Amino acid sequence: MVSTVVRRSWKPATTDMFTLAVDVMGGDLGPRVALRACRNLLRQRSDIRLIVAVTAVVAAEAGRLLGRSARVQLLICSDQVDMNDKPSRVLRGGLNSTMAAAINEVREQRAQAVLSVGNTGALMALSRHLLGTLPGIDRPALATLLPTRGKPLLMLDLGANLSVSSGQLVQFAALGWSWSRLQRGGNPSVGLLNVGREATKGTDCVRNADQQLRALLGDDYHGFCEGDDLYRGELDVLVTDGFAGNIVLKASEGLSEWLLELLQQEFRHHWLRRWLAPLWLLAIRRIEQRISPARHGGALLLGVNGVVIKTHGKSDARAFRHALRYVLQQLEQHNAAALSDSLQMLQSRLNSVNE
Amino acid sequence: MVSTVVRRSWKPATTDMFTLAVDVMGGDLGPRVALRACRNLLRQRSDIRLIVAVTAVVAAEAGRLLGRSARVQLLICSDQVDMNDKPSRVLRGGLNSTMAAAINEVREQRAQAVLSVGNTGALMALSRHLLGTLPGIDRPALATLLPTRGKPLLMLDLGANLSVSSGQLVQFAALGWSWSRLQRGGNPSVGLLNVGREATKGTDCVRNADQQLRALLGDDYHGFCEGDDLYRGELDVLVTDGFAGNIVLKASEGLSEWLLELLQQEFRHHWLRRWLAPLWLLAIRRIEQRISPARHGGALLLGVNGVVIKTHGKSDARAFRHALRYVLQQLEQHNAAALSDSLQMLQSRLNSVNE
Repeated sequence: MVSTVVRRSWKPATTDMFTLAVDVMGGDLGPRVALRACRNLLRQRSDIRLIVAVTAVVAAEAGRLLGRSARVQLLICSDQVDMNDKPSRVLRGGLNSTMAAAINEVREQRAQAVLSVGNTGALMALSRHLLGTLPGIDRPALATLLPTRGKPLLMLDLGANLSVSSGQLVQFAALGWSWSRLQRGGNPSVGLLNVGREATKGTDCVRNADQQLRALLGDDYHGFCEGDDLYRGELDVLVTDGFAGNIVLKASEGLSEWLLELLQQEFRHHWLRRWLAPLWLLAIRRIEQRISPARHGGALLLGVNGVVIKTHGKSDARAFRHALRYVLQQLEQHNAAALSDSLQMLQSRLNSVNE
Repeated sequence: MVSTVVRRSWKPATTDMFTLAVDVMGGDLGPRVALRACRNLLRQRSDIRLIVAVTAVVAAEAGRLLGRSARVQLLICSDQVDMNDKPSRVLRGGLNSTMAAAINEVREQRAQAVLSVGNTGALMALSRHLLGTLPGIDRPALATLLPTRGKPLLMLDLGANLSVSSGQLVQFAALGWSWSRLQRGGNPSVGLLNVGREATKGTDCVRNADQQLRALLGDDYHGFCEGDDLYRGELDVLVTDGFAGNIVLKASEGLSEWLLELLQQEFRHHWLRRWLAPLWLLAIRRIEQRISPARHGGALLLGVNGVVIKTHGKSDARAFRHALRYVLQQLEQHNAAALSDSLQMLQSRLNSVNE
């Protein structure tokens, strides 16, 4: 069975309109949460059109929640990608899955970006297959902006590449450096995550990457960083493999949730503190907001030829709302040609260094 | 130049006395911090004797700070291990370094445990070389108890083994399970850190280890865990490679420090909150104490034939005090024979599974 596109009462796109493809299937909490977030986004922003990929089972509910809008198309697919599916199986499935169909909308230039809640490995494999990668990039990396004491930190990879070569770490650094320079200007400071700052520390892989990055980025390369440098706020970009990156990001989420819980308990514990609740609740909420992007934002698949965003598998309505906002922000700032030029420049610099 | 032992006015050991060897060299903050912590420990506990390994340059200061006690021996060595030294160079140095000389005191049964502030790779290589490993263990792992929402979590490895095989991960799990069962009784629940909980997720290495652990530990094996499971408090033991383990531990330290800072700032910000300082300062202090073992404790080199503790390279006086307390606690609970028996039992179970 091939995917069916239902395009009823579709509002023609104007130049100031964004069209997003959204794969709502495959999250831990089911598609309803994502569908509601889509409905809210349509209400809030009149310059957004959505192409929502769903399976036949969910189509009725999607129609009910979104069907009345003239800015929605439903893409009804025969299959969906599950958390357990291996990338190889997903690639064999062609365009039948909601994830593949949504990415294909970007390839066919019917959408400017795609958002998925599903399996990271599958999203990576399908995006790479359908959209291709940027110059000099073998495999894209998942990246996100982490809040820190100072400037936000672009960290990559966060789980798309579990075992990496030193060459791939250098590619991630080139991606991060280029993205950061385009988005924020100036000379981004790039660090490489390791178990110590000394040049003798770490695996052969990170030590080789360290040597190459010194030659490639010059003064913009900050050298090895340790785990406690993540929140210092001195770096623009931090590079690591997807295994360590994924674990460190999720551990940080878990720890900040626990600390906020401890704080709430402490203040409920004492009658006088409970009585003064308005005073400290505001303070706790401000701290929560300050650190929340790490817990609720989306992650960008950097290095693929298009804007692909992944949200958490456990995304709740709030996380989905944040992710949709993140896609729009990326879209508004995205400059594929400039990113490509920057990577090509680094690629030729790297070739001349290696010659 | 060979190490010189200065044994003046040494108090003979009685059966209820502990003798610790301490290598005070090689920390980021210099030996003085460690020497002061040693002096305080001697004042507080009359059942402790210390063998303090120092270089000739530091000997005078060590003599001044500790020399009057009848429960101190100074071990004056010609060399010290630096943070940049590779394990291979350190091994060639024989017993000339303060670190090797301190470990050798355990081998020669003149001390019951050794504490070092120095280079992790060197401590691992020298301990393995001088003390040997426990049955079925190829390489020891650094382990520490992390505070969580529930029971403390024994996490290993924290940086002694950067690239590991699936067989080594299984050995770490066997070590953690045995240690936890001896220290806390019952059936310890053991998890393996990964990027997802599904059996298809992760590298070949962790998926192979997962299969072996199912066979080896049966119901005591909890399966794959993600980064946000670290602080949930449901596990007794969490196993990972030293690269991810080191990074996740240091990132947690960095994040909790930043959050406590944010909290202090929030409460100083508002005049009424500042006025009510005694009320919330106590709450913050309680939270800090609750999470502080992760930031200030020592790490145990598990799998080596003896009690070897490593403190942070950046240890301040407080961290050193905590580490000394941690050594004593380990010593009081340590049962080398029982640990050896438990590992031998697991080893034969593993052999029968693999046959």
